[in-house]
Amino acid sequence: MYISVIGASKCGKDLYKLAYDVGREIAKRKAILICGGLGGVMDASAKGAKEVGGMTVGILPGDTRIGASKYLNVSLPTGMGEARNVLVIKAADVVIAIGGEYGTLSEIAHALKMNIPVVGLKTWDIGKDEFGVSRIIKVDDPISAVEKAYKLAKSKG
Amino acid sequence: MYISVIGASKCGKDLYKLAYDVGREIAKRKAILICGGLGGVMDASAKGAKEVGGMTVGILPGDTRIGASKYLNVSLPTGMGEARNVLVIKAADVVIAIGGEYGTLSEIAHALKMNIPVVGLKTWDIGKDEFGVSRIIKVDDPISAVEKAYKLAKSKG
Amino acid sequence: MYISVIGASKCGKDLYKLAYDVGREIAKRKAILICGGLGGVMDASAKGAKEVGGMTVGILPGDTRIGASKYLNVSLPTGMGEARNVLVIKAADVVIAIGGEYGTLSEIAHALKMNIPVVGLKTWDIGKDEFGVSRIIKVDDPISAVEKAYKLAKSKG
Amino acid sequence: MYISVIGASKCGKDLYKLAYDVGREIAKRKAILICGGLGGVMDASAKGAKEVGGMTVGILPGDTRIGASKYLNVSLPTGMGEARNVLVIKAADVVIAIGGEYGTLSEIAHALKMNIPVVGLKTWDIGKDEFGVSRIIKVDDPISAVEKAYKLAKSKG
Repeated sequence: MYISVIGASKCGKDLYKLAYDVGREIAKRKAILICGGLGGVMDASAKGAKEVGGMTVGILPGDTRIGASKYLNVSLPTGMGEARNVLVIKAADVVIAIGGEYGTLSEIAHALKMNIPVVGLKTWDIGKDEFGVSRIIKVDDPISAVEKAYKLAKSKG
Repeated sequence: MYISVIGASKCGKDLYKLAYDVGREIAKRKAILICGGLGGVMDASAKGAKEVGGMTVGILPGDTRIGASKYLNVSLPTGMGEARNVLVIKAADVVIAIGGEYGTLSEIAHALKMNIPVVGLKTWDIGKDEFGVSRIIKVDDPISAVEKAYKLAKSKG
Repeated sequence: MYISVIGASKCGKDLYKLAYDVGREIAKRKAILICGGLGGVMDASAKGAKEVGGMTVGILPGDTRIGASKYLNVSLPTGMGEARNVLVIKAADVVIAIGGEYGTLSEIAHALKMNIPVVGLKTWDIGKDEFGVSRIIKVDDPISAVEKAYKLAKSKG
Repeated sequence: MYISVIGASKCGKDLYKLAYDVGREIAKRKAILICGGLGGVMDASAKGAKEVGGMTVGILPGDTRIGASKYLNVSLPTGMGEARNVLVIKAADVVIAIGGEYGTLSEIAHALKMNIPVVGLKTWDIGKDEFGVSRIIKVDDPISAVEKAYKLAKSKG
């Protein structure tokens, strides 16, 4: 199972802790963690996963590995800039969005467009769909986030 | 000047008319219209522009020109699928969003991330930024949309 | 009809003149000229085409239009770096390769992989295919290049 | 260290065996094997590496994991078609080309363009550079290929 964690490359301590805990939880469940490979939420989630023996993959925007999180088992420079966001989403069975700025919003939108479920922790609220269902499944803590993500990915597979 | 028009590939008559009028207005101001090259809002805006002698460019998701709007002066297959949305935005001095679904939302987010202004006609509302300024500049009609877009692009250039 | 002209971004006077003449000839035949949008062979072919009223499109590697040839009717920043080469080829009904270094070789290879014919002027020689047919159709002058390209594109269409 | 193995998605028994042995050798040296994730040479090298506990990554051309080699620890759908070749190369400290068709040639060319060394086993011959040095470092067997690749990557790092 592949879970992509998305969020800003700079973040405060609170979000960093949330992302770290999400990463740990993903690793405990033996899912592969995909992220954008840089700092902030990406670094935090990779750190959390790696520390408990998880597999972490970073899909980088630049041409080189400079600036990549040091908690990645595999890092892939793409040279595609922001367009690499689409790859972070394509790799996912389910996405967990943590906090977030415009880059994160674009990733959420790509995921919803591709029918990949999105679980949100303190992230964008983009309302409900035509059936009155929230587009982003909101949760309040890291364990619920991964639990929910896990179930969604499984029910899809 | 390059203006990208974004919106769904299927749309009702009302949005089609709005997009058509936006396209006409863009062409009258001699700006180059960029779009995703398919149906709906893209086709409508290209039609409006082309009918008054404008230059229209479609950046297509597929590997071929099959399914492209017939109102494009230049069409470019990319084979990149949804990732081509990033190219539609990168080409723009300013973006006009009309109606829209998740693909459009991802394009809006990419534009805001790259500091490219977004003018919105009946599109997503994603709130205000940290200074209380609306992220998307809302307008009510096609002429105001292009007028506003034109000014924003000029003040940037 | 779309003809992509490929070749290095730096070139001597002789290749520049060849590329310029190829561009003129493409424009005279009302085909759209696609190129990588930078200097050298790209600039020369765009110049030749633009001076006789042709339509020229540059697909740029960078995030901005800085450094683009000034002879482009439409220029598109992609932010994809070398991966934009694939887009230059995808847009083509036929490719004309002039001189060339490794970037050009990669484009020739992409074209052959996609079954897009390649006409070559003083370019790479990559031998014959399993039927003994030269992979690149060699010509000696700009007019023959465009004539040959035109026929190949037509027979495909 | 990252070593990309490139070659056709269909190949005969001899090339399959060579690629399998190259994969094994890469894994023994604890390098990460990157490939295009499909059949033929890609599948063979991943199989060889995985069987001795190596880490294997496939960068897939399609939107899904359907058709991916079953010997990948991590597989990434890109939806970029042939343009994903550029990503296979960007990830590499060194490239080993085995046999090969046009896709492989495009990858070799991308590597040389980016100054990433290419070791070749029964692959394209594209001559010498302006200093009379062979562009592709030719070897005759899998062990020499990986040994050579390893030294080249190390001297770069």
